[in-house]
Amino acid sequence: MTVNSDIEREVHAVAGRAKDAAFVLATLSRSVKDAALSAIADALVKRTDEITAANAEDVERARAEGTSPAMIDRLSLTPQRIEAIAEAVREIIDLPDPVGESVRGGVLPNGLDLRQIRVPLGVIGIIYEGRPNVTVDAAALCLKSGNAALLRGSSSAFDSNTAIVKVLREALEGTEVPVDAIQMVPGRTRESSTALMRARGLVDVLIPRGGGSLIQAVVRDSTVPVIETGEGLCHVYVDADADLDKAVAIATNAKAQRCSVCNSAETLLVHEAVAEAFLPRVLASLAEVDVTVHGDPRVLEIAAAHPTEAMVVEATEQDWASEYLSMDLAVRVVPDVDAALAHIRKYSTQHTEAIVTDSLSTSRYFVARVDSAAVMVNASTRFTDGGEFGFGAEIGISTQKLHARGPMGLTEMTSTKYVVTGEGHLK
Amino acid sequence: MTVNSDIEREVHAVAGRAKDAAFVLATLSRSVKDAALSAIADALVKRTDEITAANAEDVERARAEGTSPAMIDRLSLTPQRIEAIAEAVREIIDLPDPVGESVRGGVLPNGLDLRQIRVPLGVIGIIYEGRPNVTVDAAALCLKSGNAALLRGSSSAFDSNTAIVKVLREALEGTEVPVDAIQMVPGRTRESSTALMRARGLVDVLIPRGGGSLIQAVVRDSTVPVIETGEGLCHVYVDADADLDKAVAIATNAKAQRCSVCNSAETLLVHEAVAEAFLPRVLASLAEVDVTVHGDPRVLEIAAAHPTEAMVVEATEQDWASEYLSMDLAVRVVPDVDAALAHIRKYSTQHTEAIVTDSLSTSRYFVARVDSAAVMVNASTRFTDGGEFGFGAEIGISTQKLHARGPMGLTEMTSTKYVVTGEGHLK
Repeated sequence: MTVNSDIEREVHAVAGRAKDAAFVLATLSRSVKDAALSAIADALVKRTDEITAANAEDVERARAEGTSPAMIDRLSLTPQRIEAIAEAVREIIDLPDPVGESVRGGVLPNGLDLRQIRVPLGVIGIIYEGRPNVTVDAAALCLKSGNAALLRGSSSAFDSNTAIVKVLREALEGTEVPVDAIQMVPGRTRESSTALMRARGLVDVLIPRGGGSLIQAVVRDSTVPVIETGEGLCHVYVDADADLDKAVAIATNAKAQRCSVCNSAETLLVHEAVAEAFLPRVLASLAEVDVTVHGDPRVLEIAAAHPTEAMVVEATEQDWASEYLSMDLAVRVVPDVDAALAHIRKYSTQHTEAIVTDSLSTSRYFVARVDSAAVMVNASTRFTDGGEFGFGAEIGISTQKLHARGPMGLTEMTSTKYVVTGEGHLK
Repeated sequence: MTVNSDIEREVHAVAGRAKDAAFVLATLSRSVKDAALSAIADALVKRTDEITAANAEDVERARAEGTSPAMIDRLSLTPQRIEAIAEAVREIIDLPDPVGESVRGGVLPNGLDLRQIRVPLGVIGIIYEGRPNVTVDAAALCLKSGNAALLRGSSSAFDSNTAIVKVLREALEGTEVPVDAIQMVPGRTRESSTALMRARGLVDVLIPRGGGSLIQAVVRDSTVPVIETGEGLCHVYVDADADLDKAVAIATNAKAQRCSVCNSAETLLVHEAVAEAFLPRVLASLAEVDVTVHGDPRVLEIAAAHPTEAMVVEATEQDWASEYLSMDLAVRVVPDVDAALAHIRKYSTQHTEAIVTDSLSTSRYFVARVDSAAVMVNASTRFTDGGEFGFGAEIGISTQKLHARGPMGLTEMTSTKYVVTGEGHLK
C-alpha cells in the first residue's frame, strides 16, 4: 500500500461520510438549517481567539516564505474580519431556502399529478485558494442549500482553515445538522486534491474557486463533474453610436474600480469612427488611475497625435489573450461591430462583455451574438455578481454553459426531481 | 502523422464547422427553424427510396453477421417507418421554441434592467446505438433548440445514417439554416468517437444514448461535459399500507408493459406485513405475462406455500444490481420502508422509483428520501418519459443531477445568459 493510496482511501472515507450526511441534510427543514447557521455565526465570534491564533501560524509561515504583503493581507484574519465573516453567515440565514421549491407542475391529461421540485445536489467539493473567509462562505452556502461541503483550501491557509472547520463542526454538534455536513479534505498535498477529483459517485460536483491554472487543472483531472468558475477575460466595446462620456466612465470603471477580480475588463475595443474622439479622452481618464494601456498600432498613432499622461505600450498577440487582473488594459480599434464580435469570440472566456451604444439595433445585434454568461449594455462589467444580481450571495461565477451560467446563488446549488402522484395509474 | 491523429483532425474540423454553424443558429427565429424542419420532413418522405436502399445494405450486412431477428427489426426502415419518422419531425415543429424565453428578470435597486434568457447550448454531440430513427430525432431536436448536431451512430447503421444525414443536409440547402447545423462524425472506428469525446472547446455537451456500457465509456473517456442518460435500475416498493389490487397492477405494468426500456422496473420490494397476502397474487399476475421472478429466501418460502404458475428462482447478489431489460424481476421482502430506502440507495441508478401506499405520511417519507430523477406514488415507473410529462419529445432521460434531471425536452437543451441594460451605470 503506497502513501498515495492511503491518502486516497482517507479522502474517499471522508467523502463517504459526506454522502451519508447529505442524505440527512436533504430532508431538513429551513428552520433547522437556519438554527445551525446561527450557531455557526455565534461560535465564530465567540472563538475568535482560537482562529486568530491559528491564522498567526499561517501568516508567520507566509512571511518566512517571503510572501508579498498583498497576499499576506488577504490571508490575515483579525477580530473585525471574523465579525464580518460571521455577519455574512447571518445574511445567508435571511435568504430563502431553495430546497422544495416547485419549479413546475400541473395535472397531466391522464390525471397524474406532476411536480418538479428543487433538491440539493448532494456533496459539493470546493477547491479554493487564498482567503480563509471562503471556508466559512462555502460551508454556509452548502448548508443552507442542503448540501454537504468538502472543503479543500490552499496549503497557505491550512492552519486557519483547520481551526475554522473545527469551530464550524463543533457548532453543529448542538444542532440537528450532522457534523459531517462540513468537512475538510484531509492532507495538504496534491494527492489529496487529486483523490477528491476522482471521487466520482461520492462527490456530486466540484467547484474550483481561484486562478485560471487551478480551474484548468481541476477541469482536466477531475472525473467528478466540475463547474468552471471565475476566469474572466472581459471586453468593453465602444460602438460608433456610443455616448462618449458614458464610454469613458464605463471603460475606466470596468478596468480600474477593482482590477484583481474576474469581472473587471481586460480589453477595450473601439469603433474606428469614434477612435479619434474617444481615445484621447479615455487614455487621460485611465492615466489618472495609473492604468497602463497596451495598444494596437492605431491606438499608438492616436496617442502620439494627442499626448496625454497615459502610459501606452505596444500590444502583442499575447495581450489580447491576457487576463491581467492588474492595472493593464489592452486596447484595439476595430472597423465595425462584427470585427468586435469576432475578436470577442476568439479571446473571450465567456464571462462578461459590455457594449456602450445608443443604437437600439446595434445593442440587439451585439447581445444576440455574444455568447457569454452576461452581456452588459451601457453598464460596467463589474456588475456581474451574485450580490448585485440580487441572489444574496454566490458560490462563484460559472463560465460554462451546463447547469449554471453566471453568478451561482443558492438556487444554482440545487438539482430537481419529479414527483408524480397517481391513483394506480398504468401505462 | 498517424492514422489516429488524421481521424482526430478530421473530427475536430467537423466540430469546428459545427461551432460556426451554431453561431448562426443561435440568432435564427423560430419561423426559420420551423421552415427547415418542414423541408426535412418533406425530403425524408420524398427520398424514401434512397434511404431504404441504403438501409438494405445495413440489414444485409447484419444478416450476414448473424444478428438476431429482433435487432434486425430495430435496424430496418420501411416506407411506413420513414413516414412515421417524418411525422415526428412535424410534431417538433408544433413545439414552442425555448430560445429567447425569459427565465427571470426585473429591475435591480440601482435601476439596472436584468433579464436571464434562454440560449442554445451550442454544439451537441450525440453518440447512439441501434435504430436509425434516432439520427432524425436528435437532429430535429437540436435544430429546433438552436443547437448544431454532431451525430455518431452505431457502425451497424452506418449506411442508413449516411443516407439520412445526406437527405437532411440537402434539405437545409434551400433554407436559411446553415447546412453544417447537422453533421455526421466522420469514420466508424472507436478512434472517431474518442476524438469527439476529446473535442473540448468545440463541442459543448455530449449525450450518449444507448446501453450502460456505452454510457459508462463516454463518461470515463470524455473531456467534453457529458449528460448521462437512460440507465434505469428502477424499483417498485409495495408498502404495508398499499392497496394490493393497485400494487399487483402497478408491479406487473412497470415490469412487463415494455421490459426493454429504461423506465421499466427491475426490482420489487415488498413490506413484510403484506408479503403473504401480496406475493401469491403478484406472482400469479407476473406468471400470466411470463415474467421470471428472482426471489429472496422469504419470497421462495411464500411461493412454495402458495403454488402458482410463476417461474421463481433464487436471487443472488447480482440480481439486485441487474438492469435486466428482460422479462425478469428481482423480488425482495423488506422489514420496513427504511430497509426499502436503504436497498434503493445501494442499487438504484437514480432513474425512477415507485411506492404503492395509501399512507400519506409514508409516501411523504419515501418521496423525501429517494434521490432519483423521478419518484412515482401509486403509478407505474413507465410514466417517466418526455412525452408523458408533456414535453412533446425528449433527447433522453438524464440520470445525473447537474444541468438536467429526468426527461430532457427542448428546454433542457438550452443554457441561459444574463442581459443587463443600464444608462451608463458604474460600480
